[in-house]
Amino acid sequence: MTIRLWDLAGAEDDRRFSPYCWRVKMALRHKALEVEEIPWRFSEKEAIAFSGQERVPVIADGERALYDSWAIAEYLDEAYPDRPLLMGGDEARTLTYFAKHWVERNLHPPILKAVVVALYNQLHDKDRAYFRASREKRFGATLEAYGADRNGALVALRGALEPLRPVLVERPFVAGRAPGYADYIVFGAFQWARAVSPIRLLEPDDPVYAWRERVMDLFGGYARNAKGYPVWA
Amino acid sequence: MTIRLWDLAGAEDDRRFSPYCWRVKMALRHKALEVEEIPWRFSEKEAIAFSGQERVPVIADGERALYDSWAIAEYLDEAYPDRPLLMGGDEARTLTYFAKHWVERNLHPPILKAVVVALYNQLHDKDRAYFRASREKRFGATLEAYGADRNGALVALRGALEPLRPVLVERPFVAGRAPGYADYIVFGAFQWARAVSPIRLLEPDDPVYAWRERVMDLFGGYARNAKGYPVWA
Repeated sequence: MTIRLWDLAGAEDDRRFSPYCWRVKMALRHKALEVEEIPWRFSEKEAIAFSGQERVPVIADGERALYDSWAIAEYLDEAYPDRPLLMGGDEARTLTYFAKHWVERNLHPPILKAVVVALYNQLHDKDRAYFRASREKRFGATLEAYGADRNGALVALRGALEPLRPVLVERPFVAGRAPGYADYIVFGAFQWARAVSPIRLLEPDDPVYAWRERVMDLFGGYARNAKGYPVWA
Repeated sequence: MTIRLWDLAGAEDDRRFSPYCWRVKMALRHKALEVEEIPWRFSEKEAIAFSGQERVPVIADGERALYDSWAIAEYLDEAYPDRPLLMGGDEARTLTYFAKHWVERNLHPPILKAVVVALYNQLHDKDRAYFRASREKRFGATLEAYGADRNGALVALRGALEPLRPVLVERPFVAGRAPGYADYIVFGAFQWARAVSPIRLLEPDDPVYAWRERVMDLFGGYARNAKGYPVWA
């Protein structure tokens, strides 16, 4: 049965930028599950009310409704254990959970600073007031002030990536010889930026750049073919 | 056959502070291998010349000589696959390699700042000139200047630990339901400090504090019984 995913979209239906939704979309392809991706905007709370909360990603798998990208990934491995695992056992799963928190604390903030104004400009009109008000409250600053120092954000991002580089010199993927959920967590952060902004986050000689190319090539170039900007811009 | 380990010591033979040697010592106990720990000082280059280089940890396992804590951990799992694994497969191994680089880049520098002067004072007389000269060259500052802002170092350390806390709320160990090499990598950083300084790195309500207690309890309290300062000082 086709799994339905509610996927954050911009003004254009096919501009999908949520890093958390990207994790789930890559995970669903990793599991080779059929999926229907439904564009969703921040203001469409009623469309996902069946999930009991107000944020995406949300999936409906038959009668099951799930939200939260981490819970969805764990569910997919439990519900479909005969398909390729996203995380191979408790040790890999726990270390992936560490990587998730590292990404959200060390990579997401500088990327958001670098692209937040571009992201705002890609939003559907009906989402803009909500996004501006909620983010400006969180940042304690206007979007424009929070996103003003793009060069500083790039320096912070490239420094934060240091522990990942030796890994990607030794192995093709964050999860080792084959891609896993740890890859999709890191990749979601980059795809978030690429969907809304032409900013060049990585230099081509960065091992993380080559890794991102490999992940974009997975599943027939699924992520590469998504609406966004060229990474070499 | 007993494995021999050359283990960095201070003025006292039983004050063992190298974070890299602690990784290996915990790993050897995890594998339930017999080990002879030989005290070694920075200036005793000739004692480990058989390894082809000048730094510890070095182990001799029969005719095999190995150095570098990561290479030793991989060797132990390969040479003794029937004993408890330090890293369960390529995915866990690659994610542990990421954790290793995260520890060395994000935890070691603030811990070293917090304890470097105390560490210097614990060194054997014959090691002091080498340690001061080599570290002052690396830091571009005197030991005393590098270690002057201990409160700043504590703030940096406690902030850097953020991605680890949710992991240790959910699971007892960094490697999940059972300890693994990822635990010993993180633990080595704390044992390094505890061996030389009474500084209180963690507050008792920190999930990392409770985890450290669990690791100190492993193997009959092996690490807890090593010479050092109480963590609650």
